[in-house]
Amino acid sequence: MSEKNEILENIKTRRSVRKFKPDMVPGDILDQIIEAGTCAPTGMNRQSPIILAITDKAVRDQLSALNAKIMGAGTDPFYGAPVVLVVLADKACPTHVYDGSLVMENLMLAAHALGIGSCWIHRAKEEFEMPEGKELLKSLGIEGEYEGVGHCILGYPDGAYPKAHDKKDTWVYRI
Amino acid sequence: MSEKNEILENIKTRRSVRKFKPDMVPGDILDQIIEAGTCAPTGMNRQSPIILAITDKAVRDQLSALNAKIMGAGTDPFYGAPVVLVVLADKACPTHVYDGSLVMENLMLAAHALGIGSCWIHRAKEEFEMPEGKELLKSLGIEGEYEGVGHCILGYPDGAYPKAHDKKDTWVYRI
Repeated sequence: MSEKNEILENIKTRRSVRKFKPDMVPGDILDQIIEAGTCAPTGMNRQSPIILAITDKAVRDQLSALNAKIMGAGTDPFYGAPVVLVVLADKACPTHVYDGSLVMENLMLAAHALGIGSCWIHRAKEEFEMPEGKELLKSLGIEGEYEGVGHCILGYPDGAYPKAHDKKDTWVYRI
Repeated sequence: MSEKNEILENIKTRRSVRKFKPDMVPGDILDQIIEAGTCAPTGMNRQSPIILAITDKAVRDQLSALNAKIMGAGTDPFYGAPVVLVVLADKACPTHVYDGSLVMENLMLAAHALGIGSCWIHRAKEEFEMPEGKELLKSLGIEGEYEGVGHCILGYPDGAYPKAHDKKDTWVYRI
């Protein structure tokens, strides 16, 4: 199989993982995943997104509780994943939601390429509209108005790797 | 270099291409790019996006003119690319913009993996809010309210491959 096919295979075999072992992702692997995120294209190269790379358990748990509160649930929305990469993007940039989303896909694909499971977890927007979210950004010295785009949770999958979903019939229209 | 590194290399070396040869992208390559797009994750697996794969020159030129009109320019916003993949997503799905954006990144990465240049071109939202855009969807039998997310233009790069942009200093915050 050529190197080109490996890239397509990686895209095709990535799955959303929702059960993780507690083991931490090694720092050098995490760095490679984060770097891939920063390689996403952005509108007019404004580079509107930022990535909060959370490995501290207390902060991770605090964010999990906040996310659960928004969802109205008492469970861990991060499914036990030890790492949470939060992508936010500068609202001053009109393409910020698109930009941040592209970062998210790069993070998920790079994780899969390195044997790490991932899943997009939503409610980042609501999270960083709340005082607790704003306080976290402030404590990091982040100024300006940033919108939460998504959480990319990371860790080693626990149990069987998820199977592919069936695809809808109406994906593509050829003209 | 391991196969894993090839995947990261593909992410790192993708560039936005803005000058294309007129040569058509072969059908089998185009099919592989489109398939990669349909492998993106979507919120709750609702599969809200669709892809219009435009290779017909008349339709491509019509869309280019519409896009130029929105931009207030007289140039070709698709930079001479012979193929335009338009990603739209169902507004009824709350994650539709995120979903469509992930499809776009898969398309761009798969294109690069297969030696095809790409670029995200905006104003798809405005395009499909116009009567001409709505008429195109209607002519394809597409029902419901679809929002334009982006155009992924495709073709063989003409001239030197673009260099990487410098990255801003404030991409990542480690916690």
